[in-house]
Amino acid sequence: MDRKNITQRRLRLGMIGGGEGAYIGGIHRFAARLDDHFELVAGAFDVDAARGHAFAARHYIHPTRSYDNYQAIIAGELQREDGVDVVAICTPNFTHFPIAKAFLEAGIDVICEKPLTSTLKDAEALLDIVQRTQRFLGVTYTYSGYPMIQEARARIARGDIGKIRTLQVEYPLEWMATGVELENNQQAAWRVDPAKNGRGGSIGDIGTHAYHLAGYVTGLKVASVAADLATFVEGRALDDNAHVLIRYEGGARGLLWSSQVAIGCSNALRLRVFGDKGSLFWSQEQPNELYYTPLLAAPTVIKRGRDDLSQQTRVRTRTPAGHPEGYIEAFANLYSGFAEIIRAKREQRQPGPVGEFIPTVYDGLKGVAFVEAVVDSHESDPFRWVTPQYT
Amino acid sequence: MDRKNITQRRLRLGMIGGGEGAYIGGIHRFAARLDDHFELVAGAFDVDAARGHAFAARHYIHPTRSYDNYQAIIAGELQREDGVDVVAICTPNFTHFPIAKAFLEAGIDVICEKPLTSTLKDAEALLDIVQRTQRFLGVTYTYSGYPMIQEARARIARGDIGKIRTLQVEYPLEWMATGVELENNQQAAWRVDPAKNGRGGSIGDIGTHAYHLAGYVTGLKVASVAADLATFVEGRALDDNAHVLIRYEGGARGLLWSSQVAIGCSNALRLRVFGDKGSLFWSQEQPNELYYTPLLAAPTVIKRGRDDLSQQTRVRTRTPAGHPEGYIEAFANLYSGFAEIIRAKREQRQPGPVGEFIPTVYDGLKGVAFVEAVVDSHESDPFRWVTPQYT
Amino acid sequence: MDRKNITQRRLRLGMIGGGEGAYIGGIHRFAARLDDHFELVAGAFDVDAARGHAFAARHYIHPTRSYDNYQAIIAGELQREDGVDVVAICTPNFTHFPIAKAFLEAGIDVICEKPLTSTLKDAEALLDIVQRTQRFLGVTYTYSGYPMIQEARARIARGDIGKIRTLQVEYPLEWMATGVELENNQQAAWRVDPAKNGRGGSIGDIGTHAYHLAGYVTGLKVASVAADLATFVEGRALDDNAHVLIRYEGGARGLLWSSQVAIGCSNALRLRVFGDKGSLFWSQEQPNELYYTPLLAAPTVIKRGRDDLSQQTRVRTRTPAGHPEGYIEAFANLYSGFAEIIRAKREQRQPGPVGEFIPTVYDGLKGVAFVEAVVDSHESDPFRWVTPQYT
Amino acid sequence: MDRKNITQRRLRLGMIGGGEGAYIGGIHRFAARLDDHFELVAGAFDVDAARGHAFAARHYIHPTRSYDNYQAIIAGELQREDGVDVVAICTPNFTHFPIAKAFLEAGIDVICEKPLTSTLKDAEALLDIVQRTQRFLGVTYTYSGYPMIQEARARIARGDIGKIRTLQVEYPLEWMATGVELENNQQAAWRVDPAKNGRGGSIGDIGTHAYHLAGYVTGLKVASVAADLATFVEGRALDDNAHVLIRYEGGARGLLWSSQVAIGCSNALRLRVFGDKGSLFWSQEQPNELYYTPLLAAPTVIKRGRDDLSQQTRVRTRTPAGHPEGYIEAFANLYSGFAEIIRAKREQRQPGPVGEFIPTVYDGLKGVAFVEAVVDSHESDPFRWVTPQYT
Repeated sequence: MDRKNITQRRLRLGMIGGGEGAYIGGIHRFAARLDDHFELVAGAFDVDAARGHAFAARHYIHPTRSYDNYQAIIAGELQREDGVDVVAICTPNFTHFPIAKAFLEAGIDVICEKPLTSTLKDAEALLDIVQRTQRFLGVTYTYSGYPMIQEARARIARGDIGKIRTLQVEYPLEWMATGVELENNQQAAWRVDPAKNGRGGSIGDIGTHAYHLAGYVTGLKVASVAADLATFVEGRALDDNAHVLIRYEGGARGLLWSSQVAIGCSNALRLRVFGDKGSLFWSQEQPNELYYTPLLAAPTVIKRGRDDLSQQTRVRTRTPAGHPEGYIEAFANLYSGFAEIIRAKREQRQPGPVGEFIPTVYDGLKGVAFVEAVVDSHESDPFRWVTPQYT
Repeated sequence: MDRKNITQRRLRLGMIGGGEGAYIGGIHRFAARLDDHFELVAGAFDVDAARGHAFAARHYIHPTRSYDNYQAIIAGELQREDGVDVVAICTPNFTHFPIAKAFLEAGIDVICEKPLTSTLKDAEALLDIVQRTQRFLGVTYTYSGYPMIQEARARIARGDIGKIRTLQVEYPLEWMATGVELENNQQAAWRVDPAKNGRGGSIGDIGTHAYHLAGYVTGLKVASVAADLATFVEGRALDDNAHVLIRYEGGARGLLWSSQVAIGCSNALRLRVFGDKGSLFWSQEQPNELYYTPLLAAPTVIKRGRDDLSQQTRVRTRTPAGHPEGYIEAFANLYSGFAEIIRAKREQRQPGPVGEFIPTVYDGLKGVAFVEAVVDSHESDPFRWVTPQYT
Repeated sequence: MDRKNITQRRLRLGMIGGGEGAYIGGIHRFAARLDDHFELVAGAFDVDAARGHAFAARHYIHPTRSYDNYQAIIAGELQREDGVDVVAICTPNFTHFPIAKAFLEAGIDVICEKPLTSTLKDAEALLDIVQRTQRFLGVTYTYSGYPMIQEARARIARGDIGKIRTLQVEYPLEWMATGVELENNQQAAWRVDPAKNGRGGSIGDIGTHAYHLAGYVTGLKVASVAADLATFVEGRALDDNAHVLIRYEGGARGLLWSSQVAIGCSNALRLRVFGDKGSLFWSQEQPNELYYTPLLAAPTVIKRGRDDLSQQTRVRTRTPAGHPEGYIEAFANLYSGFAEIIRAKREQRQPGPVGEFIPTVYDGLKGVAFVEAVVDSHESDPFRWVTPQYT
Repeated sequence: MDRKNITQRRLRLGMIGGGEGAYIGGIHRFAARLDDHFELVAGAFDVDAARGHAFAARHYIHPTRSYDNYQAIIAGELQREDGVDVVAICTPNFTHFPIAKAFLEAGIDVICEKPLTSTLKDAEALLDIVQRTQRFLGVTYTYSGYPMIQEARARIARGDIGKIRTLQVEYPLEWMATGVELENNQQAAWRVDPAKNGRGGSIGDIGTHAYHLAGYVTGLKVASVAADLATFVEGRALDDNAHVLIRYEGGARGLLWSSQVAIGCSNALRLRVFGDKGSLFWSQEQPNELYYTPLLAAPTVIKRGRDDLSQQTRVRTRTPAGHPEGYIEAFANLYSGFAEIIRAKREQRQPGPVGEFIPTVYDGLKGVAFVEAVVDSHESDPFRWVTPQYT
């Protein structure tokens, strides 16, 4: 049961990891602040506790709420009247499971980075814990927070492009095109370590984003995958480039490409979906526009900020067309969705549109199952199509 | 003298206007929150005081600090130990002057929307008050907050494109292409009213942005202008389209176009600058990229987020290349700059790079003088080139 | 009277100038060949006759029809049963007049480069000669040959964008950004020489293209112009950058920019037209697409090659959408139009759609008058709006 | 032995097929004419001989050289002093073999559309005939004629992007997104008929273009393919969408997508190649630009027409940068290459640069072998990687 009243105040947020030098931690804080639904009041920001406390001080966290580790957050905050409502887990993949488990079991909601866990077993266990504790676990599949992704989803759902035939999704990036993990780059180091990252390299790190986005927008369920993984930078134990054939239930076909070695690609996530009545195209680097082409007609540029977009698109929009929003706003849309769901649960109502279509634990589990299936297919001899365990 | 210690706490922000339905007020709040330098603690959000109080309550403002009007803010906050450090003025142009004057004279710093005032006389008076009170008055020339505008400015300053020959700047938009001011659109209504908006229509509303941006990036001072204004929507007393020839000191030539009736243009502010060694191009709707072409060489796409950009660019950046930032982040860069300057003043030091190149009262005055010169040129018979009073 | 039967054969083409190293001559030949309406059978390709004969031999011209100069073409071809039907004049501006005059008076049709002449007097005289001789004189305003320019013209004519309010047209290029005329560049040398090029520099060379295109597409007649010319490369006697304010009859306003010093711009002719119901945008460097935005609606990308385009667009198209056509095809459309008009005249019928909207002597005269008005305005003291003599 | 002198005259061209309504025949004629290396003098343009003769008359073909069928061309032209030097085969795939065989064995060079044949056996036989007769057989892999494809090839060959890691190539188009073959569309009808088109649908029609282009630009040899074909339009016997994983010798990986049902895609052939030092991107719909990004550097836009491009690029270029060339010019580059090879053979010299890197019979054979391997992989149970017989 939720012991705290959350009416007429911001949600109290704690953070694990995300301190100095942790890029994604900053993004979580921007996102939590932007719409004013959260205030960051506690945290264990660093494996080096002293460094974490210094970080907390610079961020206006009261010293009594800057903790040495996540266990201490639980111990400390549970005793407070004004203890945290929810925590954000911004640590490397392999630590997501124990941390999320501990908070959920302590009755505290969780926002967790993706991939949800580094093994399928852990992801299954988390699903079980969520179901048992009836807590909320949101997963930051960032790109589903973009307003024009909502618009694509809504348009497909209402039939604008007809029955889906084929889709192409890709997430190439450049920054690991050389062996940066050997050059003291912590972000890269854990990503190439199977013990920390799981069995997938690029396919886990960014392929999961692409896979989630394709399913999110189309509503299609995967039937099977066949994959060709490659490792181009010497010394890596995991793939840094993945080509995946996808068959969806109902007959649609997909092509997924993830790469950490694609020179010239910054964060070039792109999705194209072709139905029998039209097509849609979206690119993360130009996120304010969605290209829609009806059968045999002229392509049109649908701009974020217009009045005639779906309700879910409009509630995720802050500025008019032509004043671009970006990655932080997309991330903030997830946070606002998390807030809405947490409030709705406590107020025993359905979430409003900003809390609809928000990725949760099952989406995280599907992502991990996808990585497993991709690696299984690639490693199979003879080659074979593999069906993910959760779809 | 500044009576309050601002070390180790957020700056306390008040707001005048910017309540329900006021688009720009929301932007100011997003911008103030994003980097966590401010907390909004007080305000008079609406000319309808009851509506303003309801708005305040929804935004976690303590009831005792939701005021009926700006005079009440001054009276109330001056008596508090924790009174506001700075206020943001988000009201229509013609009210900027009395409000800014009152706060400055009460010893409270001011952030003000542009155009700074609706008459040149008022702008001159504000400059005088600022100089007399030695307070800070920041002006939200939003587009100067974009990181790639800093990059353009820095590259021109270091000579990358050589001596500037010609520039083209334009700010066309569509939303006033029909007589929306007659359809209960408050945003449009005061913009077409000379008593509230001043002598310039599109040239005041958005032409000032374009004019400021061109001068900001190039460092050029205007020598004279010749202008052709037009009013296309029937019944308007002010221009809704302006074509301006500009001569800069030193011989460079500029072309400026502002329009409120350009169908298909959302907020299509764009700037091109041509020197004798290269050129730069930037578009507000794709703000993360700056196009740079050296003489006779291939165009290059400079992306925000790269390591080799100027210091002022890098401190105005939150996400890596390929994760787009947008309008809110640009606005937040101004707020962070304002915070840095306010802190630096009290700490009697030079502002750091995030506080450099921040638009203040003199920039506001120049914008108003530009509008006056443009309208004077247009109305002259015979036609003539006019030199703005402040350049 | 036309003594020769042209049924069931190609038109016989002669060429003056356009030999070795003359870029535009090659373009005329590509254009004349592409649609198989012409065969090049005679010419005086070079001021150096020997060089011209060598050139002719390489291009399969019979030696007896490679002439020393244009007078010799007339003398020789008039005596042949199979003499030329039409000649193309590819020489520098100041020679257009005497050559065109001689051929027209000899009863031979003429295709002439633009600007038509280097003085207004010569252009007036040519109009008079054409009217007197009733011969055909086509002017290669190349860009009017592009199919999507026809589409723009047709859409405006049928009211798709409503009453035109404002247009922006520009033609910037880079290759004269330094003093190439001093480096043995013949193409540049005559362009900066008032005796050969006339009073306009960039405004004559490329500004006339932009001016023609704007009028061609919109059907608007100019009322007056006010201009600011500049010369940035030292030593030039003519402008290399021009900014022009245009007022059209009926109240529309235009902005024209031509530049020979715009680093990074190859042949960046672009036209935007805004009406009260929609807008159109076209760029010469991406000529297969026309952007059309209806009021308050999403922009659409109209692609060349689609079935639902205007008749004039379709007859100027050879490949389906997605297989790009370019500059040579646009030029060939003019040649096919010239052929159609020449045939229709002799067959005493109206030209078909490929021969509609083809630039002729009066268009050439208007271009020269525009240059005169622009230079007059720029040189006026006090500054003034000038009405071109022919509009 | 070649009995005819071809010095100082155009090559004499015959055409089989390509008459009224045959889109590709017109393209061959444009291409043959553009650079003036050929004159079309004979043909059997239509299976309906009367219709073919009417067509010939409209195209200035002498009636004695408009033949009823290809056998008649051989019979007629062999007897003439001025008989054809070379013929272009513009008929459906399954007829390429007998026609090409007959001409080659009659001593006449051949230009043939792709795919070269509808079966691998026929393609192998053609290779054998070419080797035996020592005639020339050029294959119109159109896209290899684009100048910026030459530039990409040359840059990769000289190591600009280092060792290739991964490539993505795709050729989606829309026009068969519905069952147009049932609506009297002859172009579509034979493409969906295995007896006429061979075993591949989209993969044969356009996938072969994509496959050829990837190999042409990179010089990589395929090691094996794994494919997922789909047929989305009901009633079709062949694939209309193909997803193919490619492994190249040396470890590079490729992804190929061809589709005839991709709504919104006109002829959207695109190629991206990523090496360990840089990347290249080219799109057929914007063919005048090549994007090149060196490792960790800013993307650059390489424009056709610049002086510093490869020799093979420059000789395939007619207009300066900014004056776009397109599909017809690319096709003409192939024709000019064919002419150069034919002349060089007879003059017993090496072809010059315009005759280098021209697709011939072996390229055609490789394309057919690729289609076979793709279909074999798709049909295999269990799924498997298949090595094409010719690579």
